[in-house]
Amino acid sequence: MSLDSITTQSPHHVVIIGGGFGGLHAARELGRASSIKVTLIDKRNYHLFQPLLYQVATGNLSPGDIASPIRSVIGQNKNTQVLMGEVVDLDPAENKLYLKDGELSYDTLVVATGVTHHYFGNDNWAPVAPGLKTVEEALEIRRRIFSAFEKAEKEPDLEKRKALLTFIVIGAGPTGVELAGALAEMAHHGLKDCFHNIDPSEATVLLLQGADRILPAFPEDLSKKAKEELEGLGVTVRTNARAMNIDDHGVTVKCKVDNHIEYIGATTILWAAGVKASPMAEVLANRTGAPLDRSGRVLVEPNLTVRDHPNIFVIGDVANFSHQGDESLPGLAPVAQQEGVYVAKLVQQRLQARTLAPFRYSDHGTLAMIGRNQAVANLTFGKFSGFTAWMMWVFVHILFLIEFDNQLLVLIQWAWSYFTRQGGARLITDRNSPEETSIERESAVQA
Amino acid sequence: MSLDSITTQSPHHVVIIGGGFGGLHAARELGRASSIKVTLIDKRNYHLFQPLLYQVATGNLSPGDIASPIRSVIGQNKNTQVLMGEVVDLDPAENKLYLKDGELSYDTLVVATGVTHHYFGNDNWAPVAPGLKTVEEALEIRRRIFSAFEKAEKEPDLEKRKALLTFIVIGAGPTGVELAGALAEMAHHGLKDCFHNIDPSEATVLLLQGADRILPAFPEDLSKKAKEELEGLGVTVRTNARAMNIDDHGVTVKCKVDNHIEYIGATTILWAAGVKASPMAEVLANRTGAPLDRSGRVLVEPNLTVRDHPNIFVIGDVANFSHQGDESLPGLAPVAQQEGVYVAKLVQQRLQARTLAPFRYSDHGTLAMIGRNQAVANLTFGKFSGFTAWMMWVFVHILFLIEFDNQLLVLIQWAWSYFTRQGGARLITDRNSPEETSIERESAVQA
Repeated sequence: MSLDSITTQSPHHVVIIGGGFGGLHAARELGRASSIKVTLIDKRNYHLFQPLLYQVATGNLSPGDIASPIRSVIGQNKNTQVLMGEVVDLDPAENKLYLKDGELSYDTLVVATGVTHHYFGNDNWAPVAPGLKTVEEALEIRRRIFSAFEKAEKEPDLEKRKALLTFIVIGAGPTGVELAGALAEMAHHGLKDCFHNIDPSEATVLLLQGADRILPAFPEDLSKKAKEELEGLGVTVRTNARAMNIDDHGVTVKCKVDNHIEYIGATTILWAAGVKASPMAEVLANRTGAPLDRSGRVLVEPNLTVRDHPNIFVIGDVANFSHQGDESLPGLAPVAQQEGVYVAKLVQQRLQARTLAPFRYSDHGTLAMIGRNQAVANLTFGKFSGFTAWMMWVFVHILFLIEFDNQLLVLIQWAWSYFTRQGGARLITDRNSPEETSIERESAVQA
Repeated sequence: MSLDSITTQSPHHVVIIGGGFGGLHAARELGRASSIKVTLIDKRNYHLFQPLLYQVATGNLSPGDIASPIRSVIGQNKNTQVLMGEVVDLDPAENKLYLKDGELSYDTLVVATGVTHHYFGNDNWAPVAPGLKTVEEALEIRRRIFSAFEKAEKEPDLEKRKALLTFIVIGAGPTGVELAGALAEMAHHGLKDCFHNIDPSEATVLLLQGADRILPAFPEDLSKKAKEELEGLGVTVRTNARAMNIDDHGVTVKCKVDNHIEYIGATTILWAAGVKASPMAEVLANRTGAPLDRSGRVLVEPNLTVRDHPNIFVIGDVANFSHQGDESLPGLAPVAQQEGVYVAKLVQQRLQARTLAPFRYSDHGTLAMIGRNQAVANLTFGKFSGFTAWMMWVFVHILFLIEFDNQLLVLIQWAWSYFTRQGGARLITDRNSPEETSIERESAVQA
C-alpha cells in the first residue's frame, strides 16, 4: 500500500525518520518553507526529552512532563505531515522507503533514528539490567527501584534485605552519574522517615566505571569534583571496575588494577555503559554502502550526507561526524539539534541552486547534575561545579524543553522537590496489561 | 512468615486494607492517636484520585499528577506503618489476616478495597472494552484512543477509517459522561489541525445508556441539561440502548423501545456501565457470614461494622450502607472519606469506653463535568449547569486532591489546556516490557 497517494508530487519531499532532537528540529526549521513538503515518521507519537528521563526513573517527574506530542510541535505546519510508523527498509536507487505497513517516496531523506543500548555482546543482560532511553524503560526502572524499598520493608532476612537495598549503576557517563546521584539523594533524604522497618539511608548506591575516572568526556578536575560530590551524597564510586557478568541477583565485578573478582549482590541493576546505533544504520549500510564505526553509527560526510548519496542525510546520535581531524562529536542533544537545523537550511539552499559550508558544531559545553543542588559544568567560558553549575544545569535543561507547558511543569515540580525533598511521581505501576493484572489478582484470592 | 514481629503488641492495632479515599482518610485521622498502631496495606504504593482518571485517559493529565505515594501522605506518622501487599484471606476468630507473602494480626480491621468492573457475566468483553479504575487502564485507554487517530491518518480505506474514528462509551453515569465529553472535546477542538489526511472532528463519539436517561442519579432536569451540553460538544447520546455483545470490531446494540438490533463498528470501546465489589468482599462473606448485595458489596450495620463482628468495619465503594429506609449511599469519594473519618473516630471513642451515634452522611451534592467549560452540579443549595457548575467542579476537585503539589500541577495544566486546548500528556506508550518491545523492533527490521 503506497502512502504516496497522500503526498502531493510537485514540492520537494523531505522525509525525516525520527522525532528526537535532530529530526524534530529539522522538521521545525523546514516548517516555514513554501516549496517543500515534509513528512516526519516516528515509531511513537511524541518527542522525548531524554536528558530528563532519569528523573522519571527516580520518581521526580512524570513522562508527560518531558514528552511532547509531535503533532503539537509541528503538526499544524501546513507543509508537514506526521506519520506514526516504522521504517524497515529502503531503496536508494528508487528514493523509496518501506514501512511496516506501507511505502513512501522521498526526494531527500533525513535519518535521525538515534541509538539504543549496547551490552557488548551480552544481550542476555538486558532483562536484568535495563537501560534508560525510553519512557517504558524509565517506568520499569522506577517500578524496580520503589518495589525494592517496599519489599525490603517487609523482609525479615537481613541478607535479602541488604540485596534489596543495594543499587548498582553500571557506567559513569552523564546518564549513570545523574542516575546514581538521584538514587542516593532519594535514599538519604527523599525517603527519610517514610519507612519503619528499614532505614533507606542504609541503601548502597554503587556506581561502576570501567575507565579510570567518571565522566571521561569532562576535564579531569571536573571528574574529580563530580566524584567528590557523588561521594558526599552517599554514592560509592568504583573506577577501573568492569562488569564481567550480570544475573538476577547481582553483578560479577573485576578490578582492572589487580584482577580481583568479586560478586556483589543487588536486586536493582541499571545499565548506562554503552550505546549502539539503532537498526536503521545497518539498513543504510546494507543499501548504500555507508561506512559504520565500531558502535554501528554511520560515518557521514562534512555536510552530514551519506557518501555518494547526496540526498540522504544522517544526523544525531546515529551519525558519526567529526570536524576534520578531531574526535567525533558526542551523542548530545545540542549536537543533534544543530545538525537538524543545518540540514534543513542546506536543503532549502539547494532548492535555490546554492549550498552551505560544511557543518560546524557550535560547542557551548556540557553539564551533568550530581544531586539536589550540585552539578559540574564544562562550558566555553569556564568550568563550574557545585551550586553555580546546578543553577546553570536547571536553566539550560528547562530552556531545551520544546514546549512551554512542559517548561512550566518541570520548573514547578523541581521547585517543589527542592524544598520538600519529595518526588511527586514515585508510583509503582504495573508492567502488565489491565486484563493480565486482574487475572493475576483473581487467582491469588482463589488460591 | 509473620509480619507481627514488626508490630508492637500493646497499642490497639488497626489494620486498614486499601489506600483509597476511605482507607487513607481513616489512616490519616488515626495518625494523631497515641494509643493506636495503624497498618495500612495496599496492593499499590500510591493513592489514586479516581475522579480525574478520565483526564489521564484522554491525555490531559499524567498519572503522577493525580496519584500520591501513600508514604508521602501518612508514612511519616510515628504510629503508622505502610505495607505494600495483597490480602488473600482472613480468620475473624483469630483476628488474623493472610497476605500473599505473610500474615498479620489485628485488633480492629477496616476493609476499604473498593470496586472493580462488572461486565454482568460477560468477562470476555473486558479485553475489548476496558474500564477506567486504575492507572494501567487509563494508560491503556489513552494508548487506544491516540493510536486510533494515528492509524486513521494512514488508512486509505474509508470504511476502516470510519471505524477507527468511531468511539463508543458504554454507560452514562458520571464516568461515562465525563469520558465521552472529553473525547468529543478533543476530537472537535483539541486535535484540530493536527492531522492532514483526516479531520478529527468527523470522529463519532457515541454514548450508550441502557436506562432512559443519562446520569440517572441526578434530577431529571439536570440529566436533560447534561444531554444537551454533550450533544453541543458533538457526542451522540443514545438512551434505552443496551449492549448485547462486544467484539474486536464493534458493539451489537439493542434498542429497548422497539427491540431493533444493530451492529456499530468501532475500534475503541470503553466500559463505564457497572461496578462490582472487589474480591475481598467475598472473602469477608465466606469467613464472617456478612450479607452481600447484588453487586457483591457488603451490607453493613449503622456503625459501618459487619453484623456480629464489631471489630470489622467495611467502608467506601465496597460497602453498602443506607440511612434507615433510604437508598444505599452511592460510590462517591466524599462518602468514602466521611466513612473513613467516622470509623477512625469511633475506634478512638471505644478505647475510652465510649461510642458514637450511627454514621450519618453529610451530602453536599454531586457534580459531573461535561466538557471544557460546562458541567452539571446538584448541590444542597441549588442546581447548576454550564459555566457556573464547571467552576464549582474545578474548585471541588482540586480541593479533594490530597497533596498540595498535585493541586498546583493539576491547576496549571488545566489552565494551560483551557487556553490552548492542548492536552499535554497525549502519549502513546507501550504495553510491553522494554525487552519485548526491542525484540519486536529487531525482528521487524530483519523481516
